[in-house]
Formats: sequence, structure tokens, C-alpha cells
Amino acid sequence: MAGKRHPMHHQPTDQTIGLGHGSGGAAMQQLIRDELLSVLPGQNPDALEDAAVLDLPPGRIAFTTDSFTVQPLEFPGGNIGHLAVHGTVNDLAMRGARPLYLSVGMIIEEGLPLDTLRRIVASLGEAAHDADVSIVAGDTKVVGRGQADGIFINTSGIGTCGPHAPSVAAARPGDLVLVNGTMGDHGVAVMIAREDLQVTADLRSDTAALYSLVEPMLAAGGEGIHTLRDLTRGGLAAGLNEIASSSGVGISVDSRAIPVRPEVGGVCEILGLSPYAVANEGKLVAMVAPDAADAVLEAMREHPLGADAAIIGEATDARTAERGAGATGLVRVTTAIGTTRVLELPAGELLPRIC
Amino acid sequence: MAGKRHPMHHQPTDQTIGLGHGSGGAAMQQLIRDELLSVLPGQNPDALEDAAVLDLPPGRIAFTTDSFTVQPLEFPGGNIGHLAVHGTVNDLAMRGARPLYLSVGMIIEEGLPLDTLRRIVASLGEAAHDADVSIVAGDTKVVGRGQADGIFINTSGIGTCGPHAPSVAAARPGDLVLVNGTMGDHGVAVMIAREDLQVTADLRSDTAALYSLVEPMLAAGGEGIHTLRDLTRGGLAAGLNEIASSSGVGISVDSRAIPVRPEVGGVCEILGLSPYAVANEGKLVAMVAPDAADAVLEAMREHPLGADAAIIGEATDARTAERGAGATGLVRVTTAIGTTRVLELPAGELLPRIC
Repeated sequence: MAGKRHPMHHQPTDQTIGLGHGSGGAAMQQLIRDELLSVLPGQNPDALEDAAVLDLPPGRIAFTTDSFTVQPLEFPGGNIGHLAVHGTVNDLAMRGARPLYLSVGMIIEEGLPLDTLRRIVASLGEAAHDADVSIVAGDTKVVGRGQADGIFINTSGIGTCGPHAPSVAAARPGDLVLVNGTMGDHGVAVMIAREDLQVTADLRSDTAALYSLVEPMLAAGGEGIHTLRDLTRGGLAAGLNEIASSSGVGISVDSRAIPVRPEVGGVCEILGLSPYAVANEGKLVAMVAPDAADAVLEAMREHPLGADAAIIGEATDARTAERGAGATGLVRVTTAIGTTRVLELPAGELLPRIC
Repeated sequence: MAGKRHPMHHQPTDQTIGLGHGSGGAAMQQLIRDELLSVLPGQNPDALEDAAVLDLPPGRIAFTTDSFTVQPLEFPGGNIGHLAVHGTVNDLAMRGARPLYLSVGMIIEEGLPLDTLRRIVASLGEAAHDADVSIVAGDTKVVGRGQADGIFINTSGIGTCGPHAPSVAAARPGDLVLVNGTMGDHGVAVMIAREDLQVTADLRSDTAALYSLVEPMLAAGGEGIHTLRDLTRGGLAAGLNEIASSSGVGISVDSRAIPVRPEVGGVCEILGLSPYAVANEGKLVAMVAPDAADAVLEAMREHPLGADAAIIGEATDARTAERGAGATGLVRVTTAIGTTRVLELPAGELLPRIC
């Protein structure tokens, strides 16, 4: 941690963010007015109020928060602005909630190029518009050089719940395990950008807002959709282990059924990673009652974000799952050669700052 | 900004936070379970869900977000955990909303001592309990050494609006200007801790949750309370200028009526600061119709957080206010010797990372 001295004070220029932009004074008001509000759709008259006052339809709401620290800030297929919207609206969608409102809190490092900030904020605004959510509250802080890393963005979101809220703790033995597409695309795209790897294949982040996919899934499967989980940090492996331990079930999946782009698989092999432990930003897993699974799968495949959807396994009675250390033995994967192994909850550092 | 290489990977120990605590794997689950959920009151069964599902009473809600980057993390009278709760519940209270739910997003720098994190989280939990809000959603990220500064905390909050929502844009000529106590206490306490100044006076942050004060104010003043604003970054000067420009009024205040602790005034003089431009974390300004002001003042003085409440000035017709550069000439202050000067919107760097 930095000590008690002030950081070097650089005079703000037209080109970079300075400390004065975060001090609550005139420079901050100008930054907010000229750079942030002007490009964010759905800006509302409450923008300069301490809190937005909102109307909500009656019923239960969903509420979530996520901070984004991805490095590099921009990568093939998106930037931190896209992630900040998609990550949070997807968390709402996983409870079956229609995303309505977002807050955006930015912590900016002194010296961030203003052009970079503009691109990120423009992407954030576009992603919010495409996801049909309004940004209704915001906050901007600036810290000195070396006290952050470019920009960190927190988004919190409010959505309205439908009649049925899937839960990470609601999977049951016999449920089928569905995913909406290929695993590991986001993590590999970020790693390639970060390590400046020379890869000729077109590898892009899968970052996307998933509610438009979840809506027809819920229409098709209703209460038969027990669990929805987006597969971000820790990827499929973390998602399945969280479901297994929260629901008290075992889960068996077959690697031969799990969609992975060959290029992603190849890069993972070079980097010594498993595509099942790498983050996605537009992928979910659904635990679905057997009698609803076909209809849900069909609904997924009719949507562009579910074109590669697949049934990859099933939930089992936890007592019959071979246990490893603690709950991590609950999830098993059948390999390409037909053997089975435990799919562990990823441990250790994995890929820091992937989202 | 950091380059493309991984930061140094330090093995996590029992004593500090390591990168593995932020990777979505087993170490993060353990951190959340053992260090965060265990000390936060109001933890609910949704803690491991992607989003919390909440019941709200019918009616409008208020929604706000704030990021906290104060340095040092701990200072006389509080720490960043207190600020993270008070700052956000106060933003809700300024719209007349009763705070109900909070999210907490933490970005932790690798190497943060675990004991420091425990103290901060314990304070955050206590402050939430005291403010009668439930922490229902959370997120934890860890970044490498030199990529953050100890810990940054974002909180977002939801509250339920009463029949009347005061607004920064609703002040009218003739309104009286009320504050609930002394100005500048928080900023001076942080500066003393940051600069390691040897000051014998007992100077402490005023950090506090204000809804319990706002509730009786609204009961006494009703729709006569046109505006409420908490006086954080930029202090009284920023708050009054924001009200003046948003409402299209002039504001005249009298320094002889503005409460300032003599010790705070003395330190400000040494540091070359104005106590009117220094942050508070438990102070508000209210713009109140003249016929309601006495009742509101009385209600404030009956509350411990309003014991030093005072009427410090009045709103005027903007056309009669002497204008300086842009809107900054709308606010004027009468000095101790009876002259008047413009109270500017603070410009430049002021006190970075004061909240």
C-alpha cells in the first residue's frame, strides 16, 4: 500500500485523466457532463441527484453487484465497458429476472488516456442500450498513478423477477445439464491480448447479455429450470462445483459433449489451461428437469446465443458421487478416451483479472 | 497502467490476501465464507446466488452507488468500512428514502493484511446493522501489488421512498439553509492521519448514518423540505453550488452562523484549506420553506446528530445573485468581518481520496 505522502500531482491535460477529475469540484462536474452523461443512453434527470428515484412494477426484485478489473482493458471482442454491463445483467438473468436498472461506479487511475475512457464509456452505453437497461446512478473517483490499474468499474443491477426464480441450490438428481455454447472463449481472448501471443485464429470474447436467451428458455421450461448459472470466473468447473455443493447433488458431464472451439482448445493446451476452468462472459449452465430438457434445448438453439447449445451431462445423487477433498469430488467428467476423473473447483490463482 | 506481464505471484499466507483469493476458486470461496459472511449481519441464503431476490413494499424506490477509496484506510473516528455504509445510506436518505438493502463490491490489493480486512469488514457489518440495512449482495476481486491501494469498496443501495422526495433541483428563493452540525470534521481527521500530523486536539471523522435524523425532519417539515444534500466531497461549498445551479437560485450564507469546531478551523488554517470545502460524512444541508424551518430546526436539535444544527443562510433569486465565472458566482458567504465573497465550487485537486 502507498504511504502517507501525496502521489505526484500531474496537471490534467486534454488527453488524460487527472486527480482533479475526482475531487468533487468543477473538473469532475465537467468530466461527468461532457464525457459520461453525453454518451450514456437512458441518462435521466436524476443524474445529479444523490440517488435516483425509480418506479418498479409490483413484485419481487433481483439485486446484484459485480466489479470489473480485467487487464488489458480492451481485448478481441470487447472491452471492460461491455463486461461491466453483461456481467451484471447476466447475474440478474440467472435468477430469471428481467434487468431494468444499472448503477456504474468507476475508479480511474490518474493518467488514463481520455480516448480510452471515451471508448469504454461508449461501449458501456451501447451494451446497456442493447440489453434494454437504463443507467440511472453513477459515481466517479480518481486515484493517483500506481494506485489502480487504468480503470475499475463496478456495476450493480436491479431486475424484476418472474413467477419462478431458479437457484444455485435447487438442482436435483436426474436433472440434465445444458450449456448454451462453447467454453473458454472469453478467457482465451483476454490471455492472448495480455500475453501478446501471435495467434492467427480469430479468437474473440463471447461477452453478451443473456436475458434475451433466458426469457424463451423460461417460457419453454418454466419451473423445470431449477438452476441457471453464468460461467464467469473459474468457468464451467467452478459453476458446476458451486451448483453441486449448494444443491447437494453430484454432477457428471461428458467432455465429448462439451462444446469447445478447436482453436480455444489448442491455445489452452499451449498455456497449460483447461477450457473448463477458463472464464466465459456469455455462457450459462442450466440444470433442467428431464421432462423439460428437450423443450429448453430447442428454445436455446433457436436463439443466436444458443446455436451451439448442448446437453452435456446429468445430476446424480450426491451419495453416489465419489467424493474427493470436501465437496470438490462431487463433479466428474468423462474424458475423450472414456475414463472419468474429478472436475475440481479450480484452486489457486488461475487467471487473475480476467473479468 | 501495468503492462502485459503477470504481476509477481506471492503465495497467499494466513496473514495477507493473495491473488488466489480473487480467482473464483476454492481460496475465494473460503475467504468469502470465513472472513466476510461470518461477520456480516443480515447475511441471507442468497449469499452464493448470482443475484439476491428481495421483497419490497409497493411504491417508488431510490437507488444509488458510491465507491470508496479513502487513504489511509483507517483514521480517527472510523475506517473505509464505516464510510462505505454511511455514504450510500446517506445518499438514499437525501431523497427521503428509508435505506433497506446494500451491495458490497470489494477490490483488494494483494498483500492487504488479513487483520486489516477483518477490521474493515467488521466495521462495515456493524455500520450496516446500526443503520438497519441488510447486505444482500457482494463481490470480491483481488488485483496484484501496485494495481490498487489496499482496498476499494463500492456499495450500492436500495431504499423505499416516502410520499415526498426532496431534490437538488427543488430549492426556491426564500428557502432557509439549514445544516445539522460542524463542517469539515471528516476531511481534517483524514488529513491528520494521512500526513501523520501531531495534533493534540481530539479530531475525529463525523461519519454517521443520517436517515434517523432525516425521518423526524421530514415528519416536521414535510413537503417544506425542498432539498437535502449530504456534504461529502467538496464539502459545504460543493453542496451549495450544486443546489444553486441545479435549482436556478442564488444562495447567501453567513460564516458567523456556520458551525466549525475551533480545532478544525485551526488545522484548516495550517493546511491552507477552507473548512467549507472539506468533506463531511455525517452532515447535510437542507433547503427549507421559511414557514417550515423552525419546526425542522427543532426536530434536528432534538436528535444527537443535529445537536449543533443551525440556520446558516437563505436562497435568493438567481438574477440578483452576483455572478462569477459561470454558475460559480451563485453562492455568496458573509465573512467574519461582515464583507461578502463568492463561495466557489471547489476546483482542482482539493483533497484526493478523502472518501
